[in-house]
Amino acid sequence: MEESSKKHIAILGSTGSIGTQALEVIEAHPDLFQAEVLTAQNNAHLLIQQAIKFKPNAVVIVNETLYDQVFDALDPHDIKVYAGSGALGSVVQMDSVDLVLTALVGYSGLMPTIKAIEAKKSIALANKETLVVAGELITNLAKENAVNIYPVDSEHSAIFQCIVGEFHNPIEKIVLTASGGPFRGKDRAFLATVAKEQALKHPNWDMGAKVTIDSASLMNKGLEVMEAKWLFGLELEQIEVIVHAQSIIHSIVQFEDGSMKAQMGLPDMKLPIQFAMTYPNRVKSDFPRFDFLNYPSLTFEKPDMEVFRNLALAFESMKAGGNMPCILNAANEVAVSGFLKDQVGFLEMSDVVERCMQEISFLKNPTYEDYVLTDKETRQKALEIIS
Amino acid sequence: MEESSKKHIAILGSTGSIGTQALEVIEAHPDLFQAEVLTAQNNAHLLIQQAIKFKPNAVVIVNETLYDQVFDALDPHDIKVYAGSGALGSVVQMDSVDLVLTALVGYSGLMPTIKAIEAKKSIALANKETLVVAGELITNLAKENAVNIYPVDSEHSAIFQCIVGEFHNPIEKIVLTASGGPFRGKDRAFLATVAKEQALKHPNWDMGAKVTIDSASLMNKGLEVMEAKWLFGLELEQIEVIVHAQSIIHSIVQFEDGSMKAQMGLPDMKLPIQFAMTYPNRVKSDFPRFDFLNYPSLTFEKPDMEVFRNLALAFESMKAGGNMPCILNAANEVAVSGFLKDQVGFLEMSDVVERCMQEISFLKNPTYEDYVLTDKETRQKALEIIS
Repeated sequence: MEESSKKHIAILGSTGSIGTQALEVIEAHPDLFQAEVLTAQNNAHLLIQQAIKFKPNAVVIVNETLYDQVFDALDPHDIKVYAGSGALGSVVQMDSVDLVLTALVGYSGLMPTIKAIEAKKSIALANKETLVVAGELITNLAKENAVNIYPVDSEHSAIFQCIVGEFHNPIEKIVLTASGGPFRGKDRAFLATVAKEQALKHPNWDMGAKVTIDSASLMNKGLEVMEAKWLFGLELEQIEVIVHAQSIIHSIVQFEDGSMKAQMGLPDMKLPIQFAMTYPNRVKSDFPRFDFLNYPSLTFEKPDMEVFRNLALAFESMKAGGNMPCILNAANEVAVSGFLKDQVGFLEMSDVVERCMQEISFLKNPTYEDYVLTDKETRQKALEIIS
Repeated sequence: MEESSKKHIAILGSTGSIGTQALEVIEAHPDLFQAEVLTAQNNAHLLIQQAIKFKPNAVVIVNETLYDQVFDALDPHDIKVYAGSGALGSVVQMDSVDLVLTALVGYSGLMPTIKAIEAKKSIALANKETLVVAGELITNLAKENAVNIYPVDSEHSAIFQCIVGEFHNPIEKIVLTASGGPFRGKDRAFLATVAKEQALKHPNWDMGAKVTIDSASLMNKGLEVMEAKWLFGLELEQIEVIVHAQSIIHSIVQFEDGSMKAQMGLPDMKLPIQFAMTYPNRVKSDFPRFDFLNYPSLTFEKPDMEVFRNLALAFESMKAGGNMPCILNAANEVAVSGFLKDQVGFLEMSDVVERCMQEISFLKNPTYEDYVLTDKETRQKALEIIS
């Protein structure tokens, strides 16, 4: 197959959990994909290894102090090297890029996603915070530019897989499944004592640190509710969360005739990553198959929003709208970072978020600049609260 | 909405379980549907009531001795009345018919389905025996005439709903769910003693007597495997059966990337009936909604083919191919009828089927006439065995 018929993919965050799995998918299907751009925040060592192996057109190392190291390693390989976060916005606009996989962590995904949409690149969205912070702005921009946003998050990929062929049929509601994380069924007294080592042990999914802590606190599910709202054009009342400890049913859609469709399988991020890259086609793969006989019982229970307050706060922020989800997200990013540094306790993460939601100025109709300012102010406030 | 934009539906078997539920769907959506033809085997009383209410163009009473009764009742209403099974083949070909819902019981569905396909009518197939007996003939005929066959059986509707929008993506396998019927978990000693009253009490589904007994004996699932093979163009090895006692997940499809999609909901035949009539659209309905919180656990187990030998026999007949499924089906129809008349025991139904499969002449490449003959011979043999 010629080079030009391959899909040329820019992976923002290629050294992270999603990024490395995306490269495994690309490696398995060299006839379908070319890694065109790879980027990393700090992991210069792995970025260099990946670049030598996948021969992208360009790489970006966001941490500028690592530029020389990356440049020296890749110059002999004829791979362009850029540095700094601004470069992310440029590389996604390269003519040779067909699809941008946004696998950055947190708020940092917003700017390059906007740039990619403005350049009319398809988006494989693995950075839910982009839609949490600025869902209205992003979805409007995607409409204006006729850009498709393909979800990578397993729950949203599940919904997307279920509505394929039914885009003309209104969604009545969706049910996002949550594993419940490592602390499912625990009470607040227990949660007050947990250390990061416990929170980092997710029972089903192998993910990056930020999303693993968010999963343990159920903030991740709250962010996913917001992501779903924007991806699928839903009202808050149309989105339900159910705890499903086995993480086999990845989410469910209910149509107006009452019929529900679910997407299922063993927890494996490579499948939704691949589907976002191959849609509307599915590609034969050797991902492990699910067998009902290994799961004689699939269970479902209500999430406990009294114990896991982050989920309630996320719903509150959505009800408020405006810059409130941006406040929630920024406060949570700082709180998780503090928890990972043993500066705040597990339950205190919610306290930080709640105080920021109360104290940062609320804006009903924020612009992009307002989001930038809100994010900055909230981070300062959250750091103050922690220290 | 004008009359001509409605879908005009011929319901073969309008007084049965599927037929009456189809009429409920039509009644709920008078803007979408017109009952154009209604037919009944023996239930003249209900057929007359239905005709007066739904004002079809024509009705057929198959039992000719009831013709005068039906004619006298409907003549004042300007509704055409025909009698005899041959009339079924004529009414489905009427110009004004758009879609034929085949809700007849057993082998009797075959001829009118062939006539309807020859007249290029869309088929909503609720008569699985048609595909069991003559799957190759029917699917070839449908291809030649560019006719779509929409499944009505809940399991096959589930698969169909899951592959909508993905017809270009090969199916790796499907998993048909089975409730296990009222005798799930019982042993052969228990089954030897059961009476028809017990077998007629299905835990989840409210259906006609034939399919309810077939569900109790798992023959229904065997027939459904054959139906699925033909509807979706699958090999036997691609079809799995799993017992799922709650009947919430109606079936599952697995694609070549390993992703599985399931269709779910409370057991309610009106939903698949309606979808077969409205595809590719879904129509808002007030069918009861499923709530996970009412089903905290969904369970799955292997079907016991030693105890429920009918399922093993069905797989055997499929492996043999040719007229063997026709033999199995005819023998089973006679056996079920005998069981309902207390002439054979529950376990003996399998014996009747197995002996017919051994004793009736096997034909590798049967024609339509061969099927007719096989059906007739098998019924005689089965009656002999019983008496």
